[in-house]
Formats: sequence, C-alpha cells, structure tokens
Amino acid sequence: MALALSLGRRGQGNCRPNPAVGCVLVREGRIVGRGWTQPGGRPHAEVVALAQAGDQARGATAYVTLEPCSHHGDTPPCAQALIDAGIARMVAAVGDSDPRVSGQGFEMLRQAGVEVQVGILAEEAARDHAGFFYKTEQGRPLVTLKMASSFDGRIATGSGQSKWITGPEARRAVHAMRARHDAVMVGAGTARADDPSLTVRDLGIEHQPVRVVISRHLDLPLISQLATSAAEVPLWLCHGQGADIERKRAWEGLGARLLPCASRGVQLDPHDILQQLGHAGLTRVFCEGGSALAASLLAFDLVDELIGFTAGLGIGAEGLPSIGALGLHNLEAANRFSLMETSPVGADVMHRWRRAS
Amino acid sequence: MALALSLGRRGQGNCRPNPAVGCVLVREGRIVGRGWTQPGGRPHAEVVALAQAGDQARGATAYVTLEPCSHHGDTPPCAQALIDAGIARMVAAVGDSDPRVSGQGFEMLRQAGVEVQVGILAEEAARDHAGFFYKTEQGRPLVTLKMASSFDGRIATGSGQSKWITGPEARRAVHAMRARHDAVMVGAGTARADDPSLTVRDLGIEHQPVRVVISRHLDLPLISQLATSAAEVPLWLCHGQGADIERKRAWEGLGARLLPCASRGVQLDPHDILQQLGHAGLTRVFCEGGSALAASLLAFDLVDELIGFTAGLGIGAEGLPSIGALGLHNLEAANRFSLMETSPVGADVMHRWRRAS
Repeated sequence: MALALSLGRRGQGNCRPNPAVGCVLVREGRIVGRGWTQPGGRPHAEVVALAQAGDQARGATAYVTLEPCSHHGDTPPCAQALIDAGIARMVAAVGDSDPRVSGQGFEMLRQAGVEVQVGILAEEAARDHAGFFYKTEQGRPLVTLKMASSFDGRIATGSGQSKWITGPEARRAVHAMRARHDAVMVGAGTARADDPSLTVRDLGIEHQPVRVVISRHLDLPLISQLATSAAEVPLWLCHGQGADIERKRAWEGLGARLLPCASRGVQLDPHDILQQLGHAGLTRVFCEGGSALAASLLAFDLVDELIGFTAGLGIGAEGLPSIGALGLHNLEAANRFSLMETSPVGADVMHRWRRAS
Repeated sequence: MALALSLGRRGQGNCRPNPAVGCVLVREGRIVGRGWTQPGGRPHAEVVALAQAGDQARGATAYVTLEPCSHHGDTPPCAQALIDAGIARMVAAVGDSDPRVSGQGFEMLRQAGVEVQVGILAEEAARDHAGFFYKTEQGRPLVTLKMASSFDGRIATGSGQSKWITGPEARRAVHAMRARHDAVMVGAGTARADDPSLTVRDLGIEHQPVRVVISRHLDLPLISQLATSAAEVPLWLCHGQGADIERKRAWEGLGARLLPCASRGVQLDPHDILQQLGHAGLTRVFCEGGSALAASLLAFDLVDELIGFTAGLGIGAEGLPSIGALGLHNLEAANRFSLMETSPVGADVMHRWRRAS
C-alpha cells in the first residue's frame, strides 16, 4: 500500500478533477501490475495496472489507495474492470466520499465474490486525497499556503526587495511543490511587485499548473510575465463584479480565463474564490502569498497545509510581513496547525504544518 | 574526546569567568577519571579528574577540551598537576586564546616529556568555549539570541498578549538553555510588558543565571517579579549615564547591581553593554528579546547564536514583531546565519543558527 500511495502521488497536480490514485497488483508475492491516474485524469490507476498485468491479474490482490469507482462516468467503472480481470482480493486505503461511489465500489466487488479489506494506511491516503475529498464534500480545493521568509517572518525588505531571501534549494523545492498542485495562486500585490511567471521550471516537467491571480479590480499590468505567457500556460483571474470591462476584454484577449467572484468588504470573499476554483475543477491549490491573501485565507480558516521556508537572516520591522492583518485579539482564538515535518533545505529550514483537526 | 566535551558542557553557565572544560583520563583502555569545571570555576576539570584517578593517573592519557592552564591564578597550573600525576600523553581539542596560557600549557607538558596532541574535535570544542574565547579576545561574552514566535515572526498579539505562543515543551527547553548561560538578558520593554522572573524553573537546578535588564532610564516598575527577587537571584541593570539618581538608589536598595553604559543615539550602545557584561565576568549571555534589543544586537553584528522556536499559528501584521527596525536596505547587506539544527520540540519547531564565519 505504501508503494501504491507513492505511485498515486505521481499524478498529483496533473489529473484534476480526478483523484490521484495509485494501484499495485500482487500475485503470489510478485508485483504484476502498477498504475496511477494518468495526466488529465484517465485512464484510472486500476485500468493502467490491469493492462500491465494482463492474464497475471487473475487471482491477484489489488492494493488501491481509494475505493474503485462504481459509476459509468467518462470511463467504465473500475470496480467492474477489477472483477472482470478476476481479482481475488482488494485492499483499499480509504473509501470514496463522492456520493456516486461511496461504499458502492466495495459493494460491487463483494457481490462478485472478491474479498474486500479497507483501512490500510487510511490516514496517509486521506491526506493524499484531501483535495479530492474537499472538492467533493465542500466544493473547494485543498489549499496549501507557502511562505518563504526571514527568521522574523518578513517576505521583503521595506523597499520591496525579495530576491532572494531563501536559497536556490528552497526555490527548487517550491517548484516541485507547485508541480504537485493543480494551480499556483497569488494575490494582485505579489503579481504587481514581483512580476512572477509562476511556472514550474528546471524540473523536466512538461505539465504546468494553472496560474491563479486574485485581483478584485483586474488592475494588473498588461505587460508582464503573466500576461505574455497567458496564451501558453493557463492563467485564471479571479475578480470582482465591478472590474472594468476594458480590462476584462484585454485579459481575455491575452488568453486568460476570468472567474467573477463575490466580494466581502473591500476584498474578494475567499470562500467564494475557492468555490469558483473548485467549480472550475481544481482539487489542489498552492498559494504563495502575498500578505493580504495569506491573511484572508487564514482568517477564514481556509488553509489546510502550511509550508514555511525560514532563512538565516533578520530583515527587521520595516520589512513586509508574511501575513497581513488578521484581527486576532486573543491567542486562544488562533487556528493552530500541527507540525508534520521540519528539515533543512539548503541553507534554510523547511517546516510543514497541517490543519489541526 | 566526545565524552570530555559532553562533561565540559555540564559546567556551562555555572563557572564564569572560567571556561567550562571537560577532562577524561584513560589508562589501558579504561576510564580512570572524569572531571569538569566545578561551580564557580574551580576546581578545574583536570584537577577533578586527577583526584578521581589517584594513582591510576600514572601513565594515563588525558583528554582535555581546552589547553590546560600554565599560570598560577586562583589555582596552581593544571599543566603542572598533570605532569606531577605522571600523565604520559595529553590530547587536547583546542589551544587557549588567553595570552597568559596560549601554547604555554602545551609547552610545559612537552618539556616534561608528555606526548601532546592538539586538534581533536577542535571545531566542536571551539564552539563550546566560544564564550570564553570571545571574552578573552574581544572583552565581550558570547550572545545567544532566542526568539519564540508565531510562524509569521510575531512575539505577541497587537494587544500585547504573548502567553502562550509556543508550548510547554519549548518553554522547558528555554529554561534548560538559560541554565547553560551565565546570564539571561532582556530589554526594558519586555521587562515591563511581561513582568518575567527570568529564572530557571522546574529543572532541579539550584544555580540561577544572572538576570540582566537593559534600561537606559531605569524606568522599570519597582513592584515586579524582578524587583522582589533581586535580593535572592542576581539582577544587573544596564542603564545610561543620565538615569535618575532616586531610581538608582531604589534598585540598589533592592539588591540590584547597576552597570552604567555608554549611549548611542537614543539607545544604549550594544557594544558597550556587552563590554560591561564581559568586564563583570560573563562569558555566555542568553538574550530573550524584545524586538528593540534583538534589533540592536543584530544590527551591530553581535549575535553569535540564534535560536528560534516557531509555533503553528499566525498572529498577523498587527502583532508585535520579533525584531524591531534594522535599517536594512539591501538583502545582500544582511548578516546571514548558518543552520546548525532543526527539530520538533513539542508542537513547535526549534531551529538553531550560528554566525556564518
């Protein structure tokens, strides 16, 4: 199952809106098939593994990270494919939360005489599939918030210099993280200040995550890395209802996709932003700031995973904070995150946290 | 030698102004004596180990973390004691930088026919003895700066609430760190805001580090934990020349020791503060903030080791920053620290850095 989970992760960021599933077929102690959800979401992991196994699938045990689908969607149900191939036993990490599937995949297999076991490495699998589950259950993608800062939590000097606080190894790690998400998201301030391209580079990866920029007024420079690359790499702009029609036309002309979102006070409503992104098919979003967007997501408890890179320098109080105003009056009221891991990455410290449940 | 270093560290924070040395005597593959610098600085490590070994010292090898002293100070020279005991071989980690000793301890031993080897685990030993070396060479103690903050580098909410950002395990680790320094130091703002006692608690340690508070005008509350405990646990107050005479008298009456320091602009000169503390015998100072003092020490490149505790919550831009204004205009000009270690401590992340040399 650990192998199946690791295979499944290969699809992360590249199979939306489908879950990134892994499947391993074992017969008489030998692996006869391995599969993971393919780019674009199909074929599904089980189908890939079965194709690899061929006749060897008969009597084999299938290890699958998620309950096999039982409904006829874009592809025939995987549960049926496993039955047809003559699988004797099915070990699944977690059940599906999609109401069209939940429990029915297992039931279909049991009815056909396949032995079914559920719950192996369930916690790990639930984490890997969290984006898919959030989208199914709440209509929004999983949100990972990344912050690369000085050890006093600053993401730029007072004059706006941010290149580079963390080192090349940390930046490379960020590119790898981007690749495992469906989309990279930043606020308008960051887009204006840094002129980022938000692409995955130097990793030999062809697939690019969607770039999402949150800009209520769409007042982003039309001459920028994002603008010039909008025809090649997907660029989605979340904007308010009152955004200027000329700007909307200009961005659409460049190839960007516009997602109108509801406002809340002077900002776009972070709940609605994520609902719109979920509706558009995203399951995993990697937010890279800036301060205002990070604060907005944190204040509304919409951050599922938090990744910090801390560099060995102080920038001081004039520097730009990693998180904007939160309106937190009481420490007891703060959302606490649970530490998953901390390790050195080049000269910096990487620390990963997840929502405390 | 690793054992000798580990023994030596037992004396850290409790033997100023002497170095915290460790000594192990080995004869025919057996440990016959172990010693470390005793509370108050004597007896020295070598003397303790020799007393333990008795006749067994004859023909033994002595592993010592620092060059044995050769001068008659408060105690007879340890080099002579090793010779008298019949030590055959001496392995030292590093030489002493005290001009009264440097090289002369080794020379005395060699002259007496003892085989001398120097440089085993030298880097580690140099780090352990850094406080002693700084004091000898530069007249100032080693400075460790500790910051316990939210993951956005805030040490309190906007309303000043700081209890508790990090968890009990991190606070316990801080108490253990305090115990390994000669003094705990805070700025006046922290002393006023938090009313701390700055003592080592719950670790079964009787010895208390000196408490040092930096307050230019000595405008600290006379009813406070620091004030009421000044007669029992040493309290030193670094103040400016213009501090009110009544306040000076009041604090002296409570048992505090006053250290007048030079000013630099609107603050006390951090160089002079450390010179005064070094002159008063401190070799290792543990600074716990606040923002202004941390900024002052960092801006003047006076921080040798930096320890961060990062908690899994965001406080937001209204919060109190861990480092005050630094006047840093250019990232290239920032002092970078080298990561020594990062690890989880309870629910928080601990990261230790040292001055990049």
